[in-house]
Amino acid sequence: MAAHVATRKSQLEVNMLVRDPQVCRSINEEHRNCKYFPQHKLPENVIATTDAKAALLGADFCFHAVPVQFSSSFLEEIANHVDPGLPFISLSKGLELNTLRTMSQIIPKALKNPRQPYVALSGPSFALELMNELPTAMVVATKDKKMANSVQQLMACRNLRINTSSDVTGVEIAGALKNVLAIAAGIVEGLNLGNNSMAALVSQGCSEIRWLATKMGAKSTTLTGLSGTGDIMLTCFVSLSRNRTVGVRLGSGEKLDDILSSMNQVAEGVTTAGAVIALAQKYKVKMPVLTAVARIIDNELTPTKAVFELMNLPQVEEV
Amino acid sequence: MAAHVATRKSQLEVNMLVRDPQVCRSINEEHRNCKYFPQHKLPENVIATTDAKAALLGADFCFHAVPVQFSSSFLEEIANHVDPGLPFISLSKGLELNTLRTMSQIIPKALKNPRQPYVALSGPSFALELMNELPTAMVVATKDKKMANSVQQLMACRNLRINTSSDVTGVEIAGALKNVLAIAAGIVEGLNLGNNSMAALVSQGCSEIRWLATKMGAKSTTLTGLSGTGDIMLTCFVSLSRNRTVGVRLGSGEKLDDILSSMNQVAEGVTTAGAVIALAQKYKVKMPVLTAVARIIDNELTPTKAVFELMNLPQVEEV
Repeated sequence: MAAHVATRKSQLEVNMLVRDPQVCRSINEEHRNCKYFPQHKLPENVIATTDAKAALLGADFCFHAVPVQFSSSFLEEIANHVDPGLPFISLSKGLELNTLRTMSQIIPKALKNPRQPYVALSGPSFALELMNELPTAMVVATKDKKMANSVQQLMACRNLRINTSSDVTGVEIAGALKNVLAIAAGIVEGLNLGNNSMAALVSQGCSEIRWLATKMGAKSTTLTGLSGTGDIMLTCFVSLSRNRTVGVRLGSGEKLDDILSSMNQVAEGVTTAGAVIALAQKYKVKMPVLTAVARIIDNELTPTKAVFELMNLPQVEEV
Repeated sequence: MAAHVATRKSQLEVNMLVRDPQVCRSINEEHRNCKYFPQHKLPENVIATTDAKAALLGADFCFHAVPVQFSSSFLEEIANHVDPGLPFISLSKGLELNTLRTMSQIIPKALKNPRQPYVALSGPSFALELMNELPTAMVVATKDKKMANSVQQLMACRNLRINTSSDVTGVEIAGALKNVLAIAAGIVEGLNLGNNSMAALVSQGCSEIRWLATKMGAKSTTLTGLSGTGDIMLTCFVSLSRNRTVGVRLGSGEKLDDILSSMNQVAEGVTTAGAVIALAQKYKVKMPVLTAVARIIDNELTPTKAVFELMNLPQVEEV
C-alpha cells in the first residue's frame, strides 16, 4: 500500500521499515523487494530502513502490516518513536489469540495511547493486481470522519476507489474471520466437493460472520459490502491466498504441522480459528462452519466428518 | 431436478414432458437425454413424453423449467390438462419483458387459476454436480408452509439440503437478477480486469439486488442467503453459466447479435437486463452496475466506458 501511495504521489517520501537487511538493500539499491514480488519495480521515492526511529520521524501516516500475533510486541518496542498524533492505517487482519483483540484495540494499547488515531483498511485487494494498476475498491474505517476523508484523499486514484466507513468493528471482524472461512473453502476444494458445495459453504460462512459481527456492534451493511462479502468472495473463490492453501492441503489429507512448517508466510486464519469458538460462546452465536474449521485445526474433527456433520444439520426454515 | 427425485425414490413414476421427439426417444430407449448431458445415465423410472396430457395426468408435483419468456404461452396451451391443485415447482428464473412479472405471477395467470400452488426452487446448483451427487444446498420458497415441507421431504437427501422459506419475492428477484449480474461478471473477465474488480463488482451487484428486492417486499436475509449471495457467487465466480459466457464475449469485443446467434440455449439474463432499468425507476433504486449491463446490451454503452463510469462514481460513505 505504501508503494501504491508512493507511485501516486511522487513528491512524497515513503519510508518502509523492514527487518531483513537484505530486503532493505534490495529496495534501496535495486528498487525491488527481493522477498515479495521481486519482479515488481518499486518507485524511487520508496526508501527502506531497518531503523524504526528513522522510519517514523516526521511521518504523516503509518501503514501497519505486521501480523496480528506479533503486533503487540513489535509496537511496544517502537512505541518511543511514535508521535501520539500519527494515524495508524492497519492492513493486518485477525484476532489476537487468548485476548480476542483486534488491531484497533492492540495498537493503542501497545503504544500506551488510547487516542492514537486508527484506521482499518480492508476490501478485496490482491497486492499483485493493485501493483499492476487493475481497478480495485477498498474501504477505510475509522470513527474520525475527517481522518477517513484524509486517508481517502491520500489513496484514491484512477484505479483505486476508497469508500469510507465509521464501522471499525464490522470491517475488522469481517477481515479477521474471512481468513478462517478461506480455510473452510480450501478444505471443500481439497475434498473435491464441487462448486455447489463451495457456494453453499461460503454463503453460510458470510451469514455466520455477519451474525457474530452484528452482535459485537457492527452494521449489517458493512458485512454485506466490499470489506465483508466482497473480500470473502475473493478470498474463498480465488486460489491465491495462504489461508485457502492451508485448507486445500488439510482437505487433501495433509497434517497441519507439515503444512505450516512448509510455508514461509503467516496464515493468519489458523490462529484466528482458535479464537472463533471462544467468540461464538461469548456472543451466543451459532457458527457451525467456522467452529468446524477450528475443530479441524485442533485435530478434533476430520474434514470428511465435518462435511457429514454440516450436511446433516437439521433442515431449517430460513429466517 | 425431476431426475434427481426419480433417483431418490425409485418407486415414483417421473414423467418428463419434452418437445423434441428425438430427445423423447433417447430418454425412453437409452435412458439418456441426447441433448443435455448425454453422457449421464437417467434412472429407469424417468419416462419422457411429448404429450402434455399424459405427462400431467395424476401428477402430484410439477417441476417447471420452461424459459421465462416462453412460459406464459406454453402454459396457456396446456392449461386444460393441469389439475387446479397441482403444485408447480419453478426452476425458471427471470422477469418477463414488458410485464416485469416473475414466475409466481406468470404461472397462476397463464393457468387462469390464482390459487394454483406455487413453489420457487433456487440456490447454487450446477446440474452436473447434482447429477454427480456432490453435496448441494437449495431453497424452496412458498407462502404455504405445509407445501414447503412436502417439497423439502420430496427432495432432501444425503447429498441435497433443502431449506424452506416463505419469501417468494426475495428468492425470485435474486434468481432473476443474478443472471444480469453474471453478464457483468463475464464482462469484467472479458476485459481482463482481474479478481479485485470482480469481487468489487459482484459485492456491489449483490447490494443492488438486495436494495431492489427489499423495496419489492423481500426479506434482506433471503438476499444474503443461499438463493441470494450463494447463488450469485456461484454464477459470477465459476465459469460455467450461459449468462457469464455472454458477458465474457461482450467484454472481449464481440457483438451481442453474433453471440446470441451462436448459442443453442437461452441466456435469460439478456432479456431480464431489459427489465432492470424499468424496475430501478419504478422502485427508485440506484443500480449502477445492473443498469450498465442493460445499457451495454442495448448498445448504448461500451464495456470499457462502463468500467470508467463505475470507477468514477462519487466516492461515498458506506451506509
